[in-house]
Amino acid sequence: MGVQTIRFRSEPRIVATSTVAGTKECKGIIGRYVETALTDDMYGEKTFEKAECKMLSKVIEGAIANGGCKREEIDMLVSGDLLNQIISASFAARDFTVPFLGVYGACSTMAESLAVAAAFIDGGFAKRAVAATGSHFASAERQYRYPLELGCTRPPQAQWTVTGAGAALLASSGNGVRVTGATLGRVVDYGVTDVNNMGAAMAPAAADTILRHFRDTQREPSYYDLIVTGDLGALGSRILKDLTWEKGLDISKNHVDCGEIIYDVIEDEFQGGSGAGCSAVVLNSYLYSKMQAGLLGRILFVATGALLSTVSSGQGESIPCIAHAVSLER
Amino acid sequence: MGVQTIRFRSEPRIVATSTVAGTKECKGIIGRYVETALTDDMYGEKTFEKAECKMLSKVIEGAIANGGCKREEIDMLVSGDLLNQIISASFAARDFTVPFLGVYGACSTMAESLAVAAAFIDGGFAKRAVAATGSHFASAERQYRYPLELGCTRPPQAQWTVTGAGAALLASSGNGVRVTGATLGRVVDYGVTDVNNMGAAMAPAAADTILRHFRDTQREPSYYDLIVTGDLGALGSRILKDLTWEKGLDISKNHVDCGEIIYDVIEDEFQGGSGAGCSAVVLNSYLYSKMQAGLLGRILFVATGALLSTVSSGQGESIPCIAHAVSLER
Repeated sequence: MGVQTIRFRSEPRIVATSTVAGTKECKGIIGRYVETALTDDMYGEKTFEKAECKMLSKVIEGAIANGGCKREEIDMLVSGDLLNQIISASFAARDFTVPFLGVYGACSTMAESLAVAAAFIDGGFAKRAVAATGSHFASAERQYRYPLELGCTRPPQAQWTVTGAGAALLASSGNGVRVTGATLGRVVDYGVTDVNNMGAAMAPAAADTILRHFRDTQREPSYYDLIVTGDLGALGSRILKDLTWEKGLDISKNHVDCGEIIYDVIEDEFQGGSGAGCSAVVLNSYLYSKMQAGLLGRILFVATGALLSTVSSGQGESIPCIAHAVSLER
Repeated sequence: MGVQTIRFRSEPRIVATSTVAGTKECKGIIGRYVETALTDDMYGEKTFEKAECKMLSKVIEGAIANGGCKREEIDMLVSGDLLNQIISASFAARDFTVPFLGVYGACSTMAESLAVAAAFIDGGFAKRAVAATGSHFASAERQYRYPLELGCTRPPQAQWTVTGAGAALLASSGNGVRVTGATLGRVVDYGVTDVNNMGAAMAPAAADTILRHFRDTQREPSYYDLIVTGDLGALGSRILKDLTWEKGLDISKNHVDCGEIIYDVIEDEFQGGSGAGCSAVVLNSYLYSKMQAGLLGRILFVATGALLSTVSSGQGESIPCIAHAVSLER
């Protein structure tokens, strides 16, 4: 097996971002960095799904505006989300007359869309592209788990789906964070069947991608100021560090997980945040701000996704997972 | 708005394909060209979804083998399907230790995955990539419509989801059909809400992409031996030809629709075939054979997708659609 890590020679720039997050999320570390803080998680809409779609549309619009661009200057939109048939992304894309690539990588979507957008720009197929994703606690809960009205007790290994969305505007030139490379994920399945324990299911996929990234690039973990995983949560993060350590790679010094840090106060969130919006919001608000301010120089952004459905779990399948990594440098 | 049609300078080749199709499908025009003709649409599995996944896994394996390659020589797999959370693609990808990009474009997935794979090869990020998709009548029916056991009557504007899968192995060099360009689709919604009339919903998206393709490339429709749409069916094809004719582009002489031609005998299929497997099977068996044999020189392959979900329709939304076009030349 050869080198699979992609190097983007032209180093496409993230020239602007935009984020929106829910009330619970804004109480945490991202509160001071998010562009739009919701005071009502319904966002003025009648259904959770429409609220989720509106958040996504808002950040796509926001990233384009923050980059000083007009819609017609955007060559493509790469987006996906957690809902069946990625309706949030598809319906958000309807608001923009821009070529659209729908992607599905569950909670790994922010990294997948960034990698695809960067590849299209580096390949010379687009000058400006938006990568975006989001999630909503209530729409995810009722699609993947139970109706909220049931008031089901959550087990301690559970995470809390983030209500929020994030978008990045990538361009072939300009000031901003440089996207220097990507390691696309492989589907990894260690046989975890507990749908409440996504961190444990996803950790091996994160380990696989991170190990391949460092093997391919022959870098040390210290090359990056931070190795940021998407939404493994507290338990999943511990498993990841164990798995990589066992293979001779110690990432404990600079690893951080978006799910682990997004909530300050842990009440019902237990292991932390999850959802495609989790890493999308943390990357495009908090981390992007720190990079733009020169406080962080290099980040390996590794968003993780659990590729199950209620049907696959109902048919006795375990949970296949994936993690895509993107190198971001200032 | 500038030129949005992508030109692939290195012209990635489709060096091999593989297809599988169900019993009903093999009675039609593709019967003599399909690699694996099922005698049992359950394909030896216990559920429709597992059968669908097995078909997809089979054609990915087949395309790699037909191209004389080993799995470890494949740099990436681009795939998606119609099921919630694209479980067929995700679980099929689990069988291959290959970097995986999950995409969602409903029935436009064959063109979307071809365009993404060709872009990654042309951009120098991959040497060999597999693009694949499929669908299964029974899994689609129970997810999108009604349990088969109900025996619901189908309206005359309905189409029949194809049971089948197709995969293409793309490579940076070699003999085969050249992928010379792509026009990525935009989401188009003319307000159709009838979920039984996908052809009418998707035709405007196909028209938008085809019109942009010919405007961008300044070609005449006669440049192509065939302009092949994915699964508009008979009614949708008529609407497409009307919509493009109104804009001054006459594609009636060389337009053909995979959904319209896949079934010989129309019993319950009414407007013809649909599903991601429809255009995937027709392209990768019948059309690819004709191109390889020199009987067709140039094809504009335009797969169409309806991006609705049962939730979006239940909430009163109309059906946003998309069509991606790929230029194939021998």
